[in-house]
Amino acid sequence: MNTNDTRSLRTTVLKQIKPTEDERVLLSSVADELMKMVNSIALRQSIPDVSAQLVGSAARGTWISGTHDLDIFITFPEKTSREELEEHGLSIAREIARDADRSEERYAEHPYINMRYRDFDVDLVPCFRVQSPDSIKSAVDRTPFHNEFIKQNISGLEDDVLLLKQFMRGGGVYGSELRTQGFSGYLTELMVIHFGSFEKVLDGACDWKPGFVIDIMGHGSLKHKDPLVVVDPTDPKRNVAAALSLDNFSRFIDVSRSFFEKPTNGMFFPLPGLELTDPEFTERLNSRKSAILAVVFKTPDVVDDVLYPQLYKMEQATAALLEDYAFTVMKTGSWAGDDAVVLLELMTSTLPDIKKHIGPPVWVRTHAGMFKSKYEKAGDVFSMYIENGRYVVEIPRKYADAKELLGERLGMCSLGKHISASMSNEFEVLEGEGVLRLKESGFRVFLGEWV
Amino acid sequence: MNTNDTRSLRTTVLKQIKPTEDERVLLSSVADELMKMVNSIALRQSIPDVSAQLVGSAARGTWISGTHDLDIFITFPEKTSREELEEHGLSIAREIARDADRSEERYAEHPYINMRYRDFDVDLVPCFRVQSPDSIKSAVDRTPFHNEFIKQNISGLEDDVLLLKQFMRGGGVYGSELRTQGFSGYLTELMVIHFGSFEKVLDGACDWKPGFVIDIMGHGSLKHKDPLVVVDPTDPKRNVAAALSLDNFSRFIDVSRSFFEKPTNGMFFPLPGLELTDPEFTERLNSRKSAILAVVFKTPDVVDDVLYPQLYKMEQATAALLEDYAFTVMKTGSWAGDDAVVLLELMTSTLPDIKKHIGPPVWVRTHAGMFKSKYEKAGDVFSMYIENGRYVVEIPRKYADAKELLGERLGMCSLGKHISASMSNEFEVLEGEGVLRLKESGFRVFLGEWV
Repeated sequence: MNTNDTRSLRTTVLKQIKPTEDERVLLSSVADELMKMVNSIALRQSIPDVSAQLVGSAARGTWISGTHDLDIFITFPEKTSREELEEHGLSIAREIARDADRSEERYAEHPYINMRYRDFDVDLVPCFRVQSPDSIKSAVDRTPFHNEFIKQNISGLEDDVLLLKQFMRGGGVYGSELRTQGFSGYLTELMVIHFGSFEKVLDGACDWKPGFVIDIMGHGSLKHKDPLVVVDPTDPKRNVAAALSLDNFSRFIDVSRSFFEKPTNGMFFPLPGLELTDPEFTERLNSRKSAILAVVFKTPDVVDDVLYPQLYKMEQATAALLEDYAFTVMKTGSWAGDDAVVLLELMTSTLPDIKKHIGPPVWVRTHAGMFKSKYEKAGDVFSMYIENGRYVVEIPRKYADAKELLGERLGMCSLGKHISASMSNEFEVLEGEGVLRLKESGFRVFLGEWV
Repeated sequence: MNTNDTRSLRTTVLKQIKPTEDERVLLSSVADELMKMVNSIALRQSIPDVSAQLVGSAARGTWISGTHDLDIFITFPEKTSREELEEHGLSIAREIARDADRSEERYAEHPYINMRYRDFDVDLVPCFRVQSPDSIKSAVDRTPFHNEFIKQNISGLEDDVLLLKQFMRGGGVYGSELRTQGFSGYLTELMVIHFGSFEKVLDGACDWKPGFVIDIMGHGSLKHKDPLVVVDPTDPKRNVAAALSLDNFSRFIDVSRSFFEKPTNGMFFPLPGLELTDPEFTERLNSRKSAILAVVFKTPDVVDDVLYPQLYKMEQATAALLEDYAFTVMKTGSWAGDDAVVLLELMTSTLPDIKKHIGPPVWVRTHAGMFKSKYEKAGDVFSMYIENGRYVVEIPRKYADAKELLGERLGMCSLGKHISASMSNEFEVLEGEGVLRLKESGFRVFLGEWV
């Protein structure tokens, strides 16, 4: 690594991601305005001892220019009941939401309100104001403690957090939601605090092995099986990196090493993928000579955190079904827009009409007898012989065609609730150039990367 | 089992396989004539202390009508040197062979002479006349002891031996040569002596499991890993059934059980297989929709005990080569006439042009680095990604066509010496209907059973 190169790249990237003074002022003023509204509405509604708090990257100065997210927590005394919290919290939030461009109630452990307000994406989240993380009553109660820890330790490292977040975005590993299974904002902040700078985080990652532990407060960690264990400074039992998948852990190691080989602006800002055209897809089919299938159905109307786990589970289930029937799956993928698509690449989509079925050893008399008489009675056995001491029959293969197998059997597999409902309504299996029927632009970009 | 059925079948079968009185007289007279010739020629050549002995099924009354085999042993005193034995033995045998229709010298541990003499297939085998099996100087020296043991114990059971031999012929498991890997004549005799009758042998076999031990003399057996262990009554260390393969062991269990379900004459005398015609083969190809390939070369001019082990080894080697390159082999077979053929049935004879190659885990830094830089430099990589923490590259498959693979690589495999020589001269790979080029009648019968 040439330090001059890195230093000048750092400046170049920061220029693109660091909020301007105008942006900061605007964000502060909107946040202040909203917090004041919380407090005054609580007063007006005679809800005592409520206080608003700005949390998240906006509160810590670690937000990337252009992302206008505000997390406003409406905090209630610890002794408040769950019902009161939900009732009063929503009552205050709803009144604020009247001034929003649009708003909706969402549900995590509690209901909360998400709204568009003066071009900001705002979450208004009721929580309990507890004494310590030991006594939290709801998962979100942890957030103010995270906020406090970062604010106390991040000073002077904000740029490094910005760089790390953008670098992870470029590498496709930023975001801890179930769709991405990558690094959360809090996690990047802890990593920068632990290692001391953006570059030092990457330098450390180059030598990570699964099971790597970061324990800033020296809590001593419980055993976690996750690829990366970052002990929560505010809650020793919790692994902040629990959502990180092995592949994203590995990808981060990979891109970190690449950074030190040749740091480029493009690592932070990769070019957007191009839509794969019809002739391009045909050409790829011809050069691969594999079999590509797509299972297509209407995307269920649920949030990403519900949809994507079901989609990933379906990839596994579909591959398992195909392997059960002796097809060899080389690769799977999934995408969701208006339609949801599970893509599969197979060695071949057709198998012989004949199947070799291996029975029990000849000397296991009862089983051997049942096996033999079963297949002697069956009218469609090609042949029966003995191989390696076992009976072997050659019988007609139930599904010699992968497309037919998926069409007939996929509906019977254990799939996620919402995908199952959508598929029981209608689904389709496309093969080869049949996939070109799918025209959604996002799908074509995905396809271009996948195939 | 209906005992009456079995009893009448026994009579029917015996009628077809028991030598007539005329046959017996003829065999005895030819055997006596040959033994006299041995003795008188030895006398004339001044070779002292030689005596001829008839051994084998002819000596024991356990030969099947129509098989005219005579084993005449020319026995020399124990103190004779190996050189003397070979020189004098061959000298006597050669003189007898002058009167044969044809004769040839063959080699086992010693040279011996095989000849056609008065329509008998005669082996003239020199051996040492030792005191006990402990002191044998050559493998054939054991035979006179076997002969003695059987003659002393078989009386009254000869018909049962005939039935067992014929039943095993019908089941394709008779013969201990390396081509068949089945039951030897001596072994059938011991089994009849041990169990007491033909039917009792079959009844016992119904419940055999691999490792079954027959130890007539209660020698206590050394550990053998063979499927059937029959301790040689004349040599406790030797397993008489050592040549029996697991599959023939299993087939014998299978046909024994069938016998008690429904004993038929056809079990002893199955109809000869029919030659598969061109349209029949095409029809089978169409109904199986698998890929059938044949490797064809000139059969090396060696005895079966040399040829067949090489042919079976080649089946394994060819299947292993195909599996190494990701083809799935369903079945193999081999046959030899003028041409030798190794047949293979594959799930498919073509694979995608693309191959998924799985590399090291990302976190094993040195290997990961070498892998990545190797494939980054290669011009023909389709794509590189991370899956389950490992680098994966999609690269062009070296052999997407099984026929091409065999044509180019089979010659480099470790094959038997004589097959290797024949193939280095010329071989051919046929596929699907291309196999119809092979017209030899015996091959077509084999093909009809195999496919």
